[in-house]
Amino acid sequence: MSTSLPIVRTIADLRARVRAWRAEGLRVGFTPTMGALHEGHLSLVRLARTRADRVLASVFVNPTQFGPNEDFEAYPRDEAGDAALLASAGCDLLYAPGVAEMYPPGASTTVTVAGVSEPLDGIARPGHFAGVATVVTKLLNQCAPDVAVFGEKDWQQLQVIRRLARDLDIPVEIIGAPTARAEDGLALSSRNAYLTAEQRPVAGRLNQVLRRVHDRLRAAEPVAAVEAEAVAELLAAGFAKVDYVEARVPETLERLGPGPASGPIRVLAAAHLGKARLIDNLGD
Amino acid sequence: MSTSLPIVRTIADLRARVRAWRAEGLRVGFTPTMGALHEGHLSLVRLARTRADRVLASVFVNPTQFGPNEDFEAYPRDEAGDAALLASAGCDLLYAPGVAEMYPPGASTTVTVAGVSEPLDGIARPGHFAGVATVVTKLLNQCAPDVAVFGEKDWQQLQVIRRLARDLDIPVEIIGAPTARAEDGLALSSRNAYLTAEQRPVAGRLNQVLRRVHDRLRAAEPVAAVEAEAVAELLAAGFAKVDYVEARVPETLERLGPGPASGPIRVLAAAHLGKARLIDNLGD
Repeated sequence: MSTSLPIVRTIADLRARVRAWRAEGLRVGFTPTMGALHEGHLSLVRLARTRADRVLASVFVNPTQFGPNEDFEAYPRDEAGDAALLASAGCDLLYAPGVAEMYPPGASTTVTVAGVSEPLDGIARPGHFAGVATVVTKLLNQCAPDVAVFGEKDWQQLQVIRRLARDLDIPVEIIGAPTARAEDGLALSSRNAYLTAEQRPVAGRLNQVLRRVHDRLRAAEPVAAVEAEAVAELLAAGFAKVDYVEARVPETLERLGPGPASGPIRVLAAAHLGKARLIDNLGD
Repeated sequence: MSTSLPIVRTIADLRARVRAWRAEGLRVGFTPTMGALHEGHLSLVRLARTRADRVLASVFVNPTQFGPNEDFEAYPRDEAGDAALLASAGCDLLYAPGVAEMYPPGASTTVTVAGVSEPLDGIARPGHFAGVATVVTKLLNQCAPDVAVFGEKDWQQLQVIRRLARDLDIPVEIIGAPTARAEDGLALSSRNAYLTAEQRPVAGRLNQVLRRVHDRLRAAEPVAAVEAEAVAELLAAGFAKVDYVEARVPETLERLGPGPASGPIRVLAAAHLGKARLIDNLGD
């Protein structure tokens, strides 16, 4: 598979390219990814295209956001395929640094975001959001984009990133992009590749269950009971373990009371099916 | 006292000024301070002047780097005097944000630097370096300077800042400036204002003791014994409490062995005298 997409692997080369764009007065859009790209990522690139003159994507499987028992080694990697897909979506440059470029010897600085990074995946994946916050701070400082696009599929991550960009005064506009889904509602994810043919239809139930949770909460059914029934339903459908199904305040991720919800809500879930840990969320 | 130095108080106004400089192709130098300026600060401004076309100074007494029992409230403040001194030293712009501009409601992101921020003042002042690292990350992102100048008087702080700028890929050159001293060797410090006339000559002993520690270590006397004698000497001279007198590896601040030192060393001390907590350091 051939592609004309230029690839840079060092911060210095990246900055030289971005500087040249800036010298022409061009606006720069940025889409950070961990590779193994699918239609969801490409929709981020296309959204960035509508907001910038040049679009830069990064592919970096960030070791510091994986726990010791998670899938860092197994995480799918396909740079040639990724580059071809990015080129087809209108990306202008791929930044694919190695681990040593991102974390040279002696690296010891961490960015942490209190509050929004604490519940949900903050509990299920200790250290995950510190890894995300640190690498995203680095990537934003390396790339210096005008706008950066992140998927709403990782809703909590999106809120963490919005918060850190604001709190650290990084001069970038953070944009959330809607989740791309398969026909049965399954959120597109690189980790869907872990699913077997038998597991795939079960996986689609996650989104269907979340939809119903949302409908019932909008109909003023009590939050705690609806959440508990959703967990039971996922387990009955064949999920091995449910980390959470919770309705929360969309931007702050604060807990809703146990009774009927008022105001905007976001329903978030994480559940295990075979080798895959699937997450999804939806809201008003 | 009149001064023509322009003052900005918001990130937006600051960025507009810096953008205008950049549009002219000018290099920007930055000197962050907590105000109550003295000759030491002015030497930082002058050093920045030699490395940049325009020099920006900030005055911000950062609440998050003070402990609950420290001197945040008492810390000396004199904006008019500071502005006049900065103008006289060749500063072009003063950035003096309020606390609400730096920490709007909901701010919850922290930058921490492992290793270099842990010993010495990391022990004596819990949370201090997280406050410093976070505010300096913010200031550098707000000001976007080409070079930023920090005093070697706060040696450990300088190493923390070098580390975070490198680790977070902030595109700035960090420069350390030599410590400005009174005739008897006392390092200039805003906190020297806390000293009474009787305490002032005692304060000068700190630098004299550190000089002797350094000479003795260079003469291969054993580290542990020399450090212990220095602490005793400071207490005998009238210091109320000595937080530490320690010789360490200059950039990493790793401990030296207890025996004779080989390689470069930095001798650092913190000691209390009346209402002042004085710090000093020196090296090869």
